[in-house]
Amino acid sequence: MHSNFHTMTENSASSAPRVVIYNVRVEFGDCDPARIVWFPNFFRWIDAASRHYFTQCGVPPWHETEKTSGLIGTPLVDTHARFVKTASYGDTLEIHTSIMEWRDKSFVQRHRFMRQNSEGGTGGADLIMECDEVRIFCVRREGTATGIRAIPIPADIRALCE
Amino acid sequence: MHSNFHTMTENSASSAPRVVIYNVRVEFGDCDPARIVWFPNFFRWIDAASRHYFTQCGVPPWHETEKTSGLIGTPLVDTHARFVKTASYGDTLEIHTSIMEWRDKSFVQRHRFMRQNSEGGTGGADLIMECDEVRIFCVRREGTATGIRAIPIPADIRALCE
Amino acid sequence: MHSNFHTMTENSASSAPRVVIYNVRVEFGDCDPARIVWFPNFFRWIDAASRHYFTQCGVPPWHETEKTSGLIGTPLVDTHARFVKTASYGDTLEIHTSIMEWRDKSFVQRHRFMRQNSEGGTGGADLIMECDEVRIFCVRREGTATGIRAIPIPADIRALCE
Amino acid sequence: MHSNFHTMTENSASSAPRVVIYNVRVEFGDCDPARIVWFPNFFRWIDAASRHYFTQCGVPPWHETEKTSGLIGTPLVDTHARFVKTASYGDTLEIHTSIMEWRDKSFVQRHRFMRQNSEGGTGGADLIMECDEVRIFCVRREGTATGIRAIPIPADIRALCE
Repeated sequence: MHSNFHTMTENSASSAPRVVIYNVRVEFGDCDPARIVWFPNFFRWIDAASRHYFTQCGVPPWHETEKTSGLIGTPLVDTHARFVKTASYGDTLEIHTSIMEWRDKSFVQRHRFMRQNSEGGTGGADLIMECDEVRIFCVRREGTATGIRAIPIPADIRALCE
Repeated sequence: MHSNFHTMTENSASSAPRVVIYNVRVEFGDCDPARIVWFPNFFRWIDAASRHYFTQCGVPPWHETEKTSGLIGTPLVDTHARFVKTASYGDTLEIHTSIMEWRDKSFVQRHRFMRQNSEGGTGGADLIMECDEVRIFCVRREGTATGIRAIPIPADIRALCE
Repeated sequence: MHSNFHTMTENSASSAPRVVIYNVRVEFGDCDPARIVWFPNFFRWIDAASRHYFTQCGVPPWHETEKTSGLIGTPLVDTHARFVKTASYGDTLEIHTSIMEWRDKSFVQRHRFMRQNSEGGTGGADLIMECDEVRIFCVRREGTATGIRAIPIPADIRALCE
Repeated sequence: MHSNFHTMTENSASSAPRVVIYNVRVEFGDCDPARIVWFPNFFRWIDAASRHYFTQCGVPPWHETEKTSGLIGTPLVDTHARFVKTASYGDTLEIHTSIMEWRDKSFVQRHRFMRQNSEGGTGGADLIMECDEVRIFCVRREGTATGIRAIPIPADIRALCE
């Protein structure tokens, strides 16, 4: 499998991309018998952060876009995550989300989990986990129950995010 | 972020690695409003398949190894997944798990989701998703509540898996 | 809140209701830092067992009934669970599901979790948890995005289950 | 099964019990193919609200109490929930949590989900779901891996909550 990513610390544009923050409170039930976050929960939070990004940029929810343009969401086609430090219940995490690259029919969204310190800030950069996702915009494939197909990046949505 | 993987279809050794299969029945609640599997659930199943691999190879459960050697599990340090086709409730998936590479303090475990056809087989190779994970063997870090640290690959566990 | 249930050990009919069994393997990630099943997972499994019951009785999946009769599923209106013993990863549980009562617009479905012993049976009745659910059959409420409304028990479905 | 509860709208004491609020944002992935919250997620949130209640009352986290008094948490022994209205993604819910009754070795905790209206308040009482839980305070049972046993209500914790 080819890597779709450059190094995560590199910004491809001269102007830094917009960053939207989503807050997560780690709960007891998010942790496993080793007392650390059970990793699939990071992906649960990433999915929420991904949608939150669009909402904050002014994009309508997918059940509305489904009616107007058929767009039902931004399914994942590729995800690459790196786990740096453990987190546990009691931690508050900030997910810093941005779009690193727009392609013809997909985009790369980056999510970085930063642990808030006891003062409520994230100064000092306690990076917990980072993830690069390749997502597509998709509509239903006609004549199928659950088939979907990618569409070109909607220009209006891209404009809202830049 | 550097890619840790070669192409997923390549086997590095002349002899194919052992493959252990874990079965998943996709349920209604595993699917999202787009009627397809909500992707964090794939990681839930992968974590079960990863542990199932060791169990099938004869490795004791982690709460037993914690008592004997301090080993508490195989946390993830890096995961790279590619989503090929959608799945929905009613589908039965087989996860084909193998260890592709043993390193000094980590290993690469590959998981491939194949959809069973109506006859119960997976002939015809309906690949749904594949994932390469880098995991470590770890023990608790002394003097901390949730800190962990990697240990060298336990030779006895590696021997059981080969 | 009124209780909707008689005692759980009581069968209201002279003939015992049909029992359908759904198997669950408890995984590491299903457990919390106390090393026991995190209780919301029981409800995840119960929801799968509830639908499995209908499937085993020959009822089509809800995405098919939605097309033919508008029926989209059997949402829960009331649930009452009693936790008897803990379970942990490595356990295999059987959920014994039956319908205890048919009402005009709802039904009572009972789920009992039994732990398999090392021989793979459940003799000796190691009851882990039991739950009585009141569910309805429902269709979408016209002119709303997510509104639903109950319909009378479909006679054909009831006949399949008896 | 006997009901452990009085009617939910009844307060047993002349002085109303303390209410602690926990906020939930319903996400896309919390919803099922019927586009409504998949019900096990309500129990996930309830578990967080239950612990949040104690945290807000000044009770230390369970991993700290485990070291000082052996107390590992408040497992559920009985839960009774009533689902009143559906919720979907985009909704913000408030969970109003209080302790309705202290018994010798258990307590009844009530959780009521109220939907915030577009102004961010919950005036008008859009009740989504309510749940009465019976929980115990517990310690590990000596000589077992996952066994637990109830202890009398710790007086210091009860004092903090009243």
